Amino acid sequence: MKRRELLAALAVHASANLTAAFALPRPSMAADLAYTDGDLAQALKLRELAGTDREAWKLVEALTTEVGARPAGSPADARAVAWALAAMKRLKLDNIRAEPVPLKVWQRGPAQARLLDPYPQPLVMAALGNSVATPAGGIEAELAWYPSIEALRNDTSDRAKGRIVFIDQKMERARDGSGYGPAVGARTTGAIEGSKRGALAVGIRSIGTDRDRIAHTGSMRYDLQVPRIPAFAVSAPDADLIARLHARGVMPRLALQLEARSGVEALTHNVIGEVKGTDLADEIVLISGHLDSWDLGQGAVDDGAGVAIALATAALIQAAGKPPRRTVRVVLWGNEENGFDGVRAYAERYGSVRHQWVGESDFGAGKVWQLRSRVRADALPLIAPMARLLAPLGVEVPAQAANEGTPGPDAGFLMRRFGWPAVELSQDGTNYFDVHHTENDTLDKIDPATLPQNVACWAVVTWLAAQAPIWFGPMAPAR
Amino acid sequence: MKRRELLAALAVHASANLTAAFALPRPSMAADLAYTDGDLAQALKLRELAGTDREAWKLVEALTTEVGARPAGSPADARAVAWALAAMKRLKLDNIRAEPVPLKVWQRGPAQARLLDPYPQPLVMAALGNSVATPAGGIEAELAWYPSIEALRNDTSDRAKGRIVFIDQKMERARDGSGYGPAVGARTTGAIEGSKRGALAVGIRSIGTDRDRIAHTGSMRYDLQVPRIPAFAVSAPDADLIARLHARGVMPRLALQLEARSGVEALTHNVIGEVKGTDLADEIVLISGHLDSWDLGQGAVDDGAGVAIALATAALIQAAGKPPRRTVRVVLWGNEENGFDGVRAYAERYGSVRHQWVGESDFGAGKVWQLRSRVRADALPLIAPMARLLAPLGVEVPAQAANEGTPGPDAGFLMRRFGWPAVELSQDGTNYFDVHHTENDTLDKIDPATLPQNVACWAVVTWLAAQAPIWFGPMAPAR
Repeated sequence: MKRRELLAALAVHASANLTAAFALPRPSMAADLAYTDGDLAQALKLRELAGTDREAWKLVEALTTEVGARPAGSPADARAVAWALAAMKRLKLDNIRAEPVPLKVWQRGPAQARLLDPYPQPLVMAALGNSVATPAGGIEAELAWYPSIEALRNDTSDRAKGRIVFIDQKMERARDGSGYGPAVGARTTGAIEGSKRGALAVGIRSIGTDRDRIAHTGSMRYDLQVPRIPAFAVSAPDADLIARLHARGVMPRLALQLEARSGVEALTHNVIGEVKGTDLADEIVLISGHLDSWDLGQGAVDDGAGVAIALATAALIQAAGKPPRRTVRVVLWGNEENGFDGVRAYAERYGSVRHQWVGESDFGAGKVWQLRSRVRADALPLIAPMARLLAPLGVEVPAQAANEGTPGPDAGFLMRRFGWPAVELSQDGTNYFDVHHTENDTLDKIDPATLPQNVACWAVVTWLAAQAPIWFGPMAPAR
Repeated sequence: MKRRELLAALAVHASANLTAAFALPRPSMAADLAYTDGDLAQALKLRELAGTDREAWKLVEALTTEVGARPAGSPADARAVAWALAAMKRLKLDNIRAEPVPLKVWQRGPAQARLLDPYPQPLVMAALGNSVATPAGGIEAELAWYPSIEALRNDTSDRAKGRIVFIDQKMERARDGSGYGPAVGARTTGAIEGSKRGALAVGIRSIGTDRDRIAHTGSMRYDLQVPRIPAFAVSAPDADLIARLHARGVMPRLALQLEARSGVEALTHNVIGEVKGTDLADEIVLISGHLDSWDLGQGAVDDGAGVAIALATAALIQAAGKPPRRTVRVVLWGNEENGFDGVRAYAERYGSVRHQWVGESDFGAGKVWQLRSRVRADALPLIAPMARLLAPLGVEVPAQAANEGTPGPDAGFLMRRFGWPAVELSQDGTNYFDVHHTENDTLDKIDPATLPQNVACWAVVTWLAAQAPIWFGPMAPAR
């Protein structure tokens, strides 16, 4: 394709936001910062190839069928690592390896909760990750109901003392998942706030957006200054039941039995494969997903989809036959869900290696609707062509904060730790929290039609980042 | 209201189908068979009063909050009986009583199923009602997959022998629940067909229309000619997993452990309350729902809704202050779900009593969309005014088979046994089988806005049936 045709092909899809979003302080400089015609043509080719790609679907189908739930350090996690190595080999990636990550894991045991008098009813529940066990024989106590974690934090009375605190925190549905942040504190810090007030245990409404009789697990933490108390989530309908009792002025007694082990020595791995670079091979364009999952579901949307998208992206670049300048590295993280051990080990090992940028797909399998970058300002002219290539796929660049992208959790850790540049491809997460961290996270929740669009987006930005004439960094580390 | 106004009020809403549906062979006779103006006016009043009624919602809210799951013969069932008696008393019904029904019940124990080699994964499952337990230590065997119960029935090979049969029967979603009949045979007869072919156990895809990781239970039966083998259902996503393995040519081994007890002596009750009739008090207009539920959910849509609708209907007629000619009897059946013991006891006791007709609300909480009767032909002129009163509520009379109504399961039993006339108010069951017989059958699945329409329909037909100048029977018993 000639340059004129190519530019026309790109321009026709240009978003109105682009000029504003990536306003260039020095237009003269922008002219120097450009991709070659060949690189742009290759990006266009990758986008079109990805549109008909079935690889991501095949990968997530295989991972959920052959492995399923794979909590870090478990035998299933070891099978997932073997599966990932075999997949990378089949996809002909370079430098394939599993890098060991020793860790201590939390293990779920049997658990149950039931309302006693005045209205005995069983509850559908799940222990939260890192919860301590109940004493032998369990706990029986009256509930103390709070509408939110804020209400508990603001409670200066002794109401929680000797009771089981119940936090009825509700989460709002949103495309960008913005309901999660305000709600998840009930899960992560509920046991701390309860324990400070003398509670014996803490239960929460599941952090999720569904109406199913299925509880959402997820990690929680303790404060060493106060006793560790057991923590669990009940399903939304069970939280409704408790709320109805509260509305009648009835505070039921609850019996809780929860077994769990913490600090179990185990081993997981980051699984890494690459598309070898040429003249800038020592610089890394990192794309990723996390290989581990919670123990309850099949780990399809969290994060089988991301694993599949990252692998399929690298495979597509490799198969397209034109080696990138920088090395494209796929990392499948170990233990994202409950400790970030994989990314911490990666940071130890690769902290001094120049990363062009880092990205992660870890928000399910919905279509990408937004591109945001986090690069130094004078690299922005190199983001604009990416945006133009993604616009026909339905991807926007926001008018505000277009260069304040937040990648997934592991990539975000690296971005904050080292100030590495980063890319965010925001997926539609409207339904993500319906099944997040539940038994319901199964393959059928993924629409196969959405995966090629994800791969197309990742292929375009990954390829161009690898070909860029300059490093996108450095930036100051944050937090 | 004057007769002319009243007739106008009724006529304006008349369905185009009515004339065809209730075509009268002898118009002259129809003129003799009519409700009084006062009775029609009262029917209209009941319809309007019901439209703002909150009683049905209050009742089902209370039953699911204060009792929840109530399998027949259990302590919760006894609490439900006490609850129902108290509710009837509060609603000022007459002749309130709980009639004991001794029975033998099946009791669920712990159960689990998991795939072993080549791809170990746990399955979300539930034992089917009446299933025998596995031998101590459980069963381990290879799966033999069948796409349907028909495929199993047609299998003359020895493929099932020594294996665990899996029947991947799928159910279609439909407003009238018509997908259930063709699918449910896999559940009720799968163990018989499997055992005939030497299978060790039978698993099925849940009979349901949802995509949730929740298994649907329900009753199954045995054939005394062949050994009883354990029977269970897995959730739709787990059935998908097995189907994917089958599609790859992999038939996994499965480990099944299932505890259960059959034939346990117990006691349940039919709970009965009435609105006493006047000159025809010995004739019964029966409206009903079943008080028991499966053990897994809260018994909200199955059949807390029906219990609430029947109670609220009788309460409305009672409160409206004009006593009916015939006695309106609410029956809340014991053990509809797994044995029909309640209705059998009722049949023994009341088989010789004249029943004007029998009706039952047992298809969830969706709006009523269709009226069908089953009365002798010369009573049809007395159905047409009911249809005209229900038309503004969105209720149709079908062009075909308008007098071949099938009431709910218990009322249907009586209709078939005694040839009693019957009424069917068909509810929208589009989503009914998403939660049917599952843990997900909880109060939040009921839209409070649909209940008043149900009560309005039942109040109109119940009141007019009680006032009718003739008996709607007799009809010949069927089956």
